Amino acid sequence: MRTDLDYARVLDDEDELAPFRQEFVLQDPELIYLDGNSLGRLPKATQRLIDRQVDENWGGRLIRGWNEGWYGAADRIGAKIGQLLGAAEGQVIVADSTSVNLYKLAHAALRARPARRKIVSDDLNFPSDLYILQGLVEGLGDGRKLTVVSSPDGISLPAELIEKALDEDTALLTLSHTSYRSGFTHDMAALTEMAHQRGALVLWDLSHSAGALAIDLRTAGVDLAVGCTYKYLNGGPGAPAFLFVRADLQEMLNNPISGWFGQRAPFQMDLEYQPAQGIRRYLTGTPPVLSLLAIEPGVDLLLEAGTDRLRAKSIRQSEYLIGLWRELLQPLGFRLGSPADPSRRGSHVALAHDHGLAINLALIEEMQVVTDFRPPDCIRFGIAPLYTSFAEIHETVYRLRKVVEERRFEDYEGWAPEVT
Amino acid sequence: MRTDLDYARVLDDEDELAPFRQEFVLQDPELIYLDGNSLGRLPKATQRLIDRQVDENWGGRLIRGWNEGWYGAADRIGAKIGQLLGAAEGQVIVADSTSVNLYKLAHAALRARPARRKIVSDDLNFPSDLYILQGLVEGLGDGRKLTVVSSPDGISLPAELIEKALDEDTALLTLSHTSYRSGFTHDMAALTEMAHQRGALVLWDLSHSAGALAIDLRTAGVDLAVGCTYKYLNGGPGAPAFLFVRADLQEMLNNPISGWFGQRAPFQMDLEYQPAQGIRRYLTGTPPVLSLLAIEPGVDLLLEAGTDRLRAKSIRQSEYLIGLWRELLQPLGFRLGSPADPSRRGSHVALAHDHGLAINLALIEEMQVVTDFRPPDCIRFGIAPLYTSFAEIHETVYRLRKVVEERRFEDYEGWAPEVT
Repeated sequence: MRTDLDYARVLDDEDELAPFRQEFVLQDPELIYLDGNSLGRLPKATQRLIDRQVDENWGGRLIRGWNEGWYGAADRIGAKIGQLLGAAEGQVIVADSTSVNLYKLAHAALRARPARRKIVSDDLNFPSDLYILQGLVEGLGDGRKLTVVSSPDGISLPAELIEKALDEDTALLTLSHTSYRSGFTHDMAALTEMAHQRGALVLWDLSHSAGALAIDLRTAGVDLAVGCTYKYLNGGPGAPAFLFVRADLQEMLNNPISGWFGQRAPFQMDLEYQPAQGIRRYLTGTPPVLSLLAIEPGVDLLLEAGTDRLRAKSIRQSEYLIGLWRELLQPLGFRLGSPADPSRRGSHVALAHDHGLAINLALIEEMQVVTDFRPPDCIRFGIAPLYTSFAEIHETVYRLRKVVEERRFEDYEGWAPEVT
Repeated sequence: MRTDLDYARVLDDEDELAPFRQEFVLQDPELIYLDGNSLGRLPKATQRLIDRQVDENWGGRLIRGWNEGWYGAADRIGAKIGQLLGAAEGQVIVADSTSVNLYKLAHAALRARPARRKIVSDDLNFPSDLYILQGLVEGLGDGRKLTVVSSPDGISLPAELIEKALDEDTALLTLSHTSYRSGFTHDMAALTEMAHQRGALVLWDLSHSAGALAIDLRTAGVDLAVGCTYKYLNGGPGAPAFLFVRADLQEMLNNPISGWFGQRAPFQMDLEYQPAQGIRRYLTGTPPVLSLLAIEPGVDLLLEAGTDRLRAKSIRQSEYLIGLWRELLQPLGFRLGSPADPSRRGSHVALAHDHGLAINLALIEEMQVVTDFRPPDCIRFGIAPLYTSFAEIHETVYRLRKVVEERRFEDYEGWAPEVT
């Protein structure tokens, strides 16, 4: 493969999504940002929207803002996210955090399968998801138990191993669609069907795939899903999460955190909870409006680009990065920490190195490249097809070589920032 | 009592908190805003903070923002709110919504009293709180039951009626400190002691009292509390809520929604949940950063003003409003929907009227006065001592007279906005 910068430029020239980069705030032209899988960049339209919402709506319209766009925002934005996920209207809504949504839907699923004691997940799942399931099982205290299937290599997990764990006692299968560390991506349709064959419900965490992969919840027959909006959806730090409940399940399941935003007519102030019709019954309390509204412009950009084109570019770029790794980084001790098969990989590439943490810190502090690190040894290179360029990927690899060849990382051994 | 405008101006001149009004965005000089009990005004400092956080931190620093103020914001702002509540450091944190926090702490309290089946609340409590308790009881399915004590007049509730409901089977007493509708305010210390005498835990919802009343959680010996930040705390629409867990209870209770922000070292990505030390174990998922940070400047203003001075001004202003009601509004069919005794009343005054909903709408749409309505018949007049003036209260009463005398409200009968 060609490893010269000119080739990267040719690839950028051929990229039909390249103009979307101009829709984002690019404050520092020297900075290369490959962490859109953790926190997406700021769309210019979001910057304008927040300004206006703070100054005019909160500042000027005050409480009347609720009748002028705030109250319906969770449904409206949810429906747009639904389009990215292949979900028909009325099945996706924005609410709470991914952790809280996972709790709500997993709790609801267990109640719908009262005689089954088993929850199946895997150790590629995001740890917070496992923590939530552990707390849920402990809080219920009714003999449910969590089975965590282990990945043989810490990178991927064959569907057969999940299948072996599924049985007639399984209430729920819940997995991260794309693994936060390796980027391994489960076969959503196949695993959903396996679980359904045993009568279990399925709950997917789409945090690391929404907005970057071509997801089709309807075709896959998915029951439940949750996911985060601040990664590829560019919703801003900690923006509220989304949840999906398939239409025919909505009235059969119960939201355990039955707050007033999930009430049929919250402003009537009735004393008895009566769930709202449809997906709104999965809301809880008052949503954080500024963080909620900030989600919409980023989603609009993704819809304009289209998930098929986004996915195609993401694969082209990650294959390009892996090609450069093979030629230029493997000799320096970098190992591929992601599946080599692009159909089983999300939109980030993990490269493992014995000095991974220190190399990542040197890259950020000295090389103007922002990536992130996940224990024990993985640097993650996030490809956000809306704004990542081939030239950035090329330059990153060369700066990475410099960090290792000049042993710049040695100053960062043992350094531990609050958040890595 | 003098009902002329000059007298209102004298009271404003004598008000040492009057200068704080200039710290808020007052876009429309004609608008009188008496709904700070529902959504507080926008502090100018918050406007600047959000601009900077969006443009510089999200836009420029991107993921590095987490190490530059975002990660510790929940504790830092929580500690400041704690000062408003008479709570020593390390006992208050900002997280989720009030509804989710109520669920977490009520769930934790019930687990700590496994043999007791009763939860006691009252019908002056905010409906969402009752919905959460109903959902919690139903989700646990272990024979717990909710007892809701009724207010004899819909306005107040003598402590003796709560006392009668408390017994040796009571696990938890949970009440709104100040009632959302009438403004009735329970005697926190007395009721907490009553519950403790029976071995029950106590959980207060401070949503309608935090930032306006002089609360002293420590002296009252309170176990648990939750509350909202977008009313008197001026945190912005739907800003995340706070929770309080008394220091000695923190390690004894369990957060049922055990997400990664409550984990001891979340970025180590361990597979087993190990709760953080102290109040952070009551966090769940990633917080909505923009809405979270927006809380701080409003809290700073309240701390500068001091809760004693805020409470004193709030009482002066609500007594003034009630004085004007007696002279000018009672003859037009308005009834006092709040306790007459200021020591049992929060910082809003409810006036009931047979045409309350329509009058409130006419007041907003035609008279540039923003108040709100709560069924069946109450218009709420929120006094936010940081920015409400006596002249505004005076003018409101005269505009209200105009709406009724000229029967302007008749056009609004049967009109139903999404949010009232």
